[in-house]
Amino acid sequence: MGLNDDNEDGDNLINDNDNNDPNQKNKKKEKEKEKEEEEEEGLSVERIFESQPVPSWRNQLTVRAFVVSFVLSILFTFIVMKLNLTTGIIPSLNVSAGLLGFFFLKVWTKFLHKSGLLKQPFTRQENTVIQTCVVASSGIAFSGGFGSYLFGMSERIAKASSDTTDFKNPSLAWIIGFLFVVSFLGLFSVVPLRKIMIIDFKLTYPSGTATAHLINSFHTPEGAKLAKKQVRELGKFFSFSFLWGLFQWFFTAGDDCGFINFPSLGLKARKDRFYFDFSATYVGVGMICPYIVNISVLLGGILSWAVMWPLIENKKGDWFPANLSSSSMHGLQGYKVFIAIAMILGDGLYNFCKVLAKTLSGLYKQLCEKHRLPVADVASPKEPELSYDDQRRTQLFLKDQIPVWFAVGGYLAVAAISTVTLPHIFPQLKWYYIVLIYIFAPTLAFCNAYGCGLTDWSLASTYGKLAIFTIGAWAGSSHGGVLAGLAACGVMMNIVSTASDLSQDFKTGYLTLASPRSMFVSQIIGTAMGCIISPSVFWLFYKAFTDLGQLGSQYPAPYAAVYRNMAILGVEGFSSLPRYCLTLCYVFFFAAILINFIKDFAGKKWARFIPLPMAMAIPFYLGSYFAIDMCVGSLILFVWTKVNKAKADAFAPAVASGLICGDGIWTLPASILALAGVKPPICMKFLSRATNDKVDAFLNP
Amino acid sequence: MGLNDDNEDGDNLINDNDNNDPNQKNKKKEKEKEKEEEEEEGLSVERIFESQPVPSWRNQLTVRAFVVSFVLSILFTFIVMKLNLTTGIIPSLNVSAGLLGFFFLKVWTKFLHKSGLLKQPFTRQENTVIQTCVVASSGIAFSGGFGSYLFGMSERIAKASSDTTDFKNPSLAWIIGFLFVVSFLGLFSVVPLRKIMIIDFKLTYPSGTATAHLINSFHTPEGAKLAKKQVRELGKFFSFSFLWGLFQWFFTAGDDCGFINFPSLGLKARKDRFYFDFSATYVGVGMICPYIVNISVLLGGILSWAVMWPLIENKKGDWFPANLSSSSMHGLQGYKVFIAIAMILGDGLYNFCKVLAKTLSGLYKQLCEKHRLPVADVASPKEPELSYDDQRRTQLFLKDQIPVWFAVGGYLAVAAISTVTLPHIFPQLKWYYIVLIYIFAPTLAFCNAYGCGLTDWSLASTYGKLAIFTIGAWAGSSHGGVLAGLAACGVMMNIVSTASDLSQDFKTGYLTLASPRSMFVSQIIGTAMGCIISPSVFWLFYKAFTDLGQLGSQYPAPYAAVYRNMAILGVEGFSSLPRYCLTLCYVFFFAAILINFIKDFAGKKWARFIPLPMAMAIPFYLGSYFAIDMCVGSLILFVWTKVNKAKADAFAPAVASGLICGDGIWTLPASILALAGVKPPICMKFLSRATNDKVDAFLNP
Repeated sequence: MGLNDDNEDGDNLINDNDNNDPNQKNKKKEKEKEKEEEEEEGLSVERIFESQPVPSWRNQLTVRAFVVSFVLSILFTFIVMKLNLTTGIIPSLNVSAGLLGFFFLKVWTKFLHKSGLLKQPFTRQENTVIQTCVVASSGIAFSGGFGSYLFGMSERIAKASSDTTDFKNPSLAWIIGFLFVVSFLGLFSVVPLRKIMIIDFKLTYPSGTATAHLINSFHTPEGAKLAKKQVRELGKFFSFSFLWGLFQWFFTAGDDCGFINFPSLGLKARKDRFYFDFSATYVGVGMICPYIVNISVLLGGILSWAVMWPLIENKKGDWFPANLSSSSMHGLQGYKVFIAIAMILGDGLYNFCKVLAKTLSGLYKQLCEKHRLPVADVASPKEPELSYDDQRRTQLFLKDQIPVWFAVGGYLAVAAISTVTLPHIFPQLKWYYIVLIYIFAPTLAFCNAYGCGLTDWSLASTYGKLAIFTIGAWAGSSHGGVLAGLAACGVMMNIVSTASDLSQDFKTGYLTLASPRSMFVSQIIGTAMGCIISPSVFWLFYKAFTDLGQLGSQYPAPYAAVYRNMAILGVEGFSSLPRYCLTLCYVFFFAAILINFIKDFAGKKWARFIPLPMAMAIPFYLGSYFAIDMCVGSLILFVWTKVNKAKADAFAPAVASGLICGDGIWTLPASILALAGVKPPICMKFLSRATNDKVDAFLNP
Repeated sequence: MGLNDDNEDGDNLINDNDNNDPNQKNKKKEKEKEKEEEEEEGLSVERIFESQPVPSWRNQLTVRAFVVSFVLSILFTFIVMKLNLTTGIIPSLNVSAGLLGFFFLKVWTKFLHKSGLLKQPFTRQENTVIQTCVVASSGIAFSGGFGSYLFGMSERIAKASSDTTDFKNPSLAWIIGFLFVVSFLGLFSVVPLRKIMIIDFKLTYPSGTATAHLINSFHTPEGAKLAKKQVRELGKFFSFSFLWGLFQWFFTAGDDCGFINFPSLGLKARKDRFYFDFSATYVGVGMICPYIVNISVLLGGILSWAVMWPLIENKKGDWFPANLSSSSMHGLQGYKVFIAIAMILGDGLYNFCKVLAKTLSGLYKQLCEKHRLPVADVASPKEPELSYDDQRRTQLFLKDQIPVWFAVGGYLAVAAISTVTLPHIFPQLKWYYIVLIYIFAPTLAFCNAYGCGLTDWSLASTYGKLAIFTIGAWAGSSHGGVLAGLAACGVMMNIVSTASDLSQDFKTGYLTLASPRSMFVSQIIGTAMGCIISPSVFWLFYKAFTDLGQLGSQYPAPYAAVYRNMAILGVEGFSSLPRYCLTLCYVFFFAAILINFIKDFAGKKWARFIPLPMAMAIPFYLGSYFAIDMCVGSLILFVWTKVNKAKADAFAPAVASGLICGDGIWTLPASILALAGVKPPICMKFLSRATNDKVDAFLNP
C-alpha cells in the first residue's frame, strides 16, 4: 500500500525497521532460523500446499471476494481519510487488510459450509485477490490527495494561505470524474513491467512479500489458529476503540470541549500543543511505527513548539508585523509552514537521489548480466537451478499472460480520454501539460516501482511535488499556476503511486500463486471502487465537519496547506516569505540532507539513534499532541515486549490495527450524527482557576 | 479488625463470603483438599516450623517491629479515615497489613543481613506482633467514631440535622483524652477471657485464622516467593493509584470540577448521583467485597435514587412543605436519612438476635459438656487426643500467663479514671451513666467477642446504638440527651469493638505460636499509637477539607448525620419526622428483617442471590456513585477470574489492596497541599450544551 509523504514516511514506518528496530532484528533472526530449519528438513512452502489445487484465474475472482473487499474498502477508506485529514501520517494497513479479509471470508465460508451451500473452498489466491482489491481501493484515498493537493485547491485552504485568487472547491461530481480519468493509467503502465520486476529482476518488495507470507501462513492449519487468536484480539480492541470514540463524543458539545482538549500536561503545555489527546488511532499508529519514528516526531515537536516558535514569536514587530492574524502566512505561521516544507523537500530530495542511484546501478547490473549471457533466457537451465518454490511460482505467474498490446492500447486510450477531459475540469491545466506528463509518466512509474521493489519506499509524493514546481512555474501565477500545479501533482501522483502499489501486489500474487490476470482484474475493480468510495467518504467528512482544514480543529488536514504553499512558492518565488524565513528554510533543507547522509554512513549501530527529518517536520506545523499519542503507543509496545516478547510480537500488530480500525470506523456514525444535526449533550471544559472563578460567578450570581 | 456499621457490613463483606461467593467456595474446597493432602502425608504446619526456635516473649517485641507498625498504622489510619468519611464501607485490611508487615520487615532484615548487622532473624511471631499492633492502632480510627458518633457531635452535622441546640466541635486535645480513657478498657476486659475463648471453646475466629494462615505461609520458603510476587503487584497498583490521585488533583480547581464530577452516564444521571467517580479506592473495595455486596449497594441506589426519591419529591407541598431547603430533615432529606436508619436498625436487630441466640446456645452446650465431665481439666488426657499442632500451640499459649488480678485491677483503675474524666469532657454525660456502662460492658464485651469467634461478625456499632437510645432517653432532650447518647455510644463501642478485635488477634497469635504476653504488650502499644495517630489524621482532614461532612462534597461522612439523627430520634421521639416517613420507616425496618430471614432459611442455592439490607441502605443517603465504582471492581474481578482463575485468586487481593492503599495515602499530600493553601491550577468542568453556549458567549464576547 503506497501511502504518503506521509507515504515516504508511511512506508518508512515499516521498512526502516530493517535498520532501526532491534525488535525487528530479532524477528529477522528468528525468521532466518526458521528458514534454515525449513531448508534442513527440505520443506518448502509450496510443498505444503502441493495437495491444494490452484483454481483457474476466473475461479479466483469470486463474487464473495468482491463483496468482502467492498466492505473492507469502506472501512479502510475511512481510516486512511481520517489519517489524511488529521496528521497525514499513515502506517501500512496491509496486515490488517490481509487479516480481516481472511476473517470475513472464513466466517462466510464456514457458515455456508455448515449450511451445506459451500461450492468452492476458500483459497489463499482468493485471499490475495481481496487484499489486492482493498489496497487498490483504499490507495485512492491517499493518492486522490484529499488531505493534500486536492483539498489544497479549496477556498478554505486558499484563505488560510492568504491567497484567494485561485481556488476550486471540492464537489462530488468533478472529483469522481477526475479520479476515473487519472487512476487507471498507473495500472496499464505497470502491467507490461511485471515480468521484468518480479521474475527477471527478482525484486524483493518487502511489504508485498510480508503480506504474502501472512496469507500463506493463514492458510496452513496452525496459521489459521494463530490468525483466529489475532482476529479475536483485533476484535476486542476494535470494539474498545469504537466505544471509546462513542464515549468521547458525548462530551464534545462545544469547540473547546472534550477529551481532545484535555490539558493532560497542564494548560500552558496545552497552549503550545503538548498534550495527550486520547486518540486510540495514534496510539495504535505509534505501536506499528518503529520507535525511532515516534521519537523523531516528538523531537521535532519539542524543537519547534518548545524552542523555535517561542523564540520567533519574540521577534514579533521586528521580523514580521505585530498586527497580523495568527493564521497569516506573512507571520509566525509562514515560518511554521515553510520550514516544514523545506525539511520535507530536503529529505525527499535526498531519498529521491538515493533511490534513483540504486535504481540506475541496479539496472546497470542487470543489463551487464544480460550482456554476459546474451542468448540465455531468464529461466534458462544455465542459471543456478531454481528451487521447487520458485519453479512452481514462476510457472503459474507466466501461465496467464496479459498481452502487451492490451496494456499499451489501454494506456493510450485512457491517456487520450484524460487529455480531453482534464482541461474541462481544470481550465488552468492546458492539454499540452497533460500530454507532457503522460509522456514522462511511464518512465517515472517504472522508476518508482523499481525503487519500491528495492527499498520499499514509494516516492509518489516527491514526483507529485516535482510536477507542482515544474508545471506551476511553466503556467505562471497570472495563468492560475497554483491550481495547474496542484492538478498536475494529482495526475502525476496517481500514476506513480498506483504503479508501485500494484507491483507490490504482483509480488504478493507471485508468492501465493495467484494469477496475474485475476490480480489485474481485481486491481481494476478495486480502483473503480476507490474512485467512488473515496470521494464519497471525503464528501461525508467535508459536509459533516464544517471546520475541516482549520488549524486547531479536529481535522486540520495539515498537508493541504503545505501543498498549496508549495505551489505558491513554485509560482511566485521566495518574495512572499517573511524576514529570515528563507535563511531558516535553507538551514533546515540542508540539515535534512545532512542528517540523512549521516544516517546512511554512520553504521547501523549509531544510525538507529538518528532521527528521521521527514518525521520531525510534521509537528512543525501541527504541534506535538499526536507525537505524544504515538510515544504512548511506543511505550505500551516497549513494556509489552519486555514483559512477554512472544506475545507482543504475535499480537501487537493486531491490537494496533484494532485500535486504528475501531476509531476510524467510529468516524462514520460520528459524521452521520453531525450531518443529521445531532449535537452532543455535554461539554467537558478545561478552565484555569481564575477563569473558572469568573465562570462560577457568572453562572451562580 | 473491627470495623463498622459499616463494621457489621465491613465484616459482612468478608465473611458473607462463606455463604455467598461461589469464588470463595471454590477456594474453600481447594483449601480443604490441601488440608486433606497434608493430613494424608502426615504433615502438620508446626512440624514444618519445628526446626525454628520460638523466641521468648520479650524477644518477639522488637524495636523494628514497632517502627514498621508505626509506619503501617499511619498508612492504614489514612485509609480507614478516608473510608469513614466517604461512605463508611470499610473492607477488612488484615491481609494488606499482614502482607505489608512481612514485606517491610523482610526488606529491613535482608538489608541488615547483607551488611552483616542482623542479630535476630525475622520470625512469624514478630510478624504477628506487627499485625496485632497495626490492627489495634487502625481499629481506633473506626471505633473512635470519626465518621460516626464523634463527628456527629459537631456543629456542622448539627446544623445539617436542623438541630443546633447541642453540639461539641472536635478539637485535638479532648479527642485524644477521650480515646485514652476509653480505649484500654476493652483490652483489660478480654484478657481473662482469652483462654476460655481460644483453648476451651475452640472458637474459629475466621479473620484471625485466615491472617494466621497467611503469616504461616509467608514464612515457609514457597510462601515467601508468592508473597514477594504479591507485594510487587501491590506495589504496582499502589503507585498507579497514588499517581492517579495526583493526576486527578490538578483538575479540581473549583467545587464542581474534576473527575469526581465526571457525568459518565450523562448529566441527568449525574444529578441523581449515578456516575462513575474514578475512585481507585472503591474499585479496590469492590474487588475485595463479594459480588452480592456490590450488587446490593447498586440495587439500593436504584431503588432509592431512581424510584423512591423522585416519587417522594413529587409530593412536595403535600407530604412536606415545598419551601424547605434541600438539606432540611423535615423534607426529602428526612426520608433519606430515616429510611436508611430504619433499614440499618432492622438488619442490626435481626443479626443481634441471631448472634445472641448462637452465643447462648453455644454457651449452653459448653456448660453441658463441662457438667458431664465435672472434674476433668480442659486439656485433660480423657479428651480426644490433641494433634501435634494443637498440643504445641496450647503449650506455648499457656506458657506465658497474664495474671487475672492484673487484668481486673487494670480494668478497675482505667474505669475509675475514665468515670472521673469523662464528665469533664462531656458535662451531659453524668458519672452514673458511665458507671452503669462499665458494669454491663464486660458482659457485652464477652458476648461480642464470643459472637465474633463464632460468626466473625462484630456487632460493636449495634451495641453503640443501644447506648445511644438508652442513655439518650434517660438523659432526655432538656439535659443534652443527644450529646450524652453519642458520648455513651463512643464509650460502649470502644470497649466492645476492641474486645472482639483482640480476641481475633489472640487466635492469630495462638496459631503462629506468638506469646499472649507479647500480643498484649503489642496491643497496648498499638492502642496508644492509635489514640494519637487517629485524632491527628482526623484533624488533618478536618482542617484541610473545610466542606467535610457536607453532603455532595468529597467527604460527606454519611454516618455522622445518621448517628446524630438516631440520637435525636431516641431523645425526641418520632414527632419530628415528615408525613408518612414513619410508615415508610416501619416498612423498611421489617423488610430488612424479612429479607434477612429469607436469606437464612432459603437454602444456600438461593440465599446467595438475595441482597443484604445493610448494604442496600448506604446509598439511600449517599447515592449510587460508589456503588458503580464497586461494581466496576466486581466486573474486573469477574472477567479476571474467567480469564485466569489461578492468577486472579492469588493476586486480586493484592491488586485491590494496592488500589486502596495508594489512593488512601495520596490523601496525605492532598490534605497537606490543601492546608498549605496550594490550589489546583485547572478546572475540568462539565456543562450542558446550553450552559456551555452561554459560558462561551460570556468568555468570548
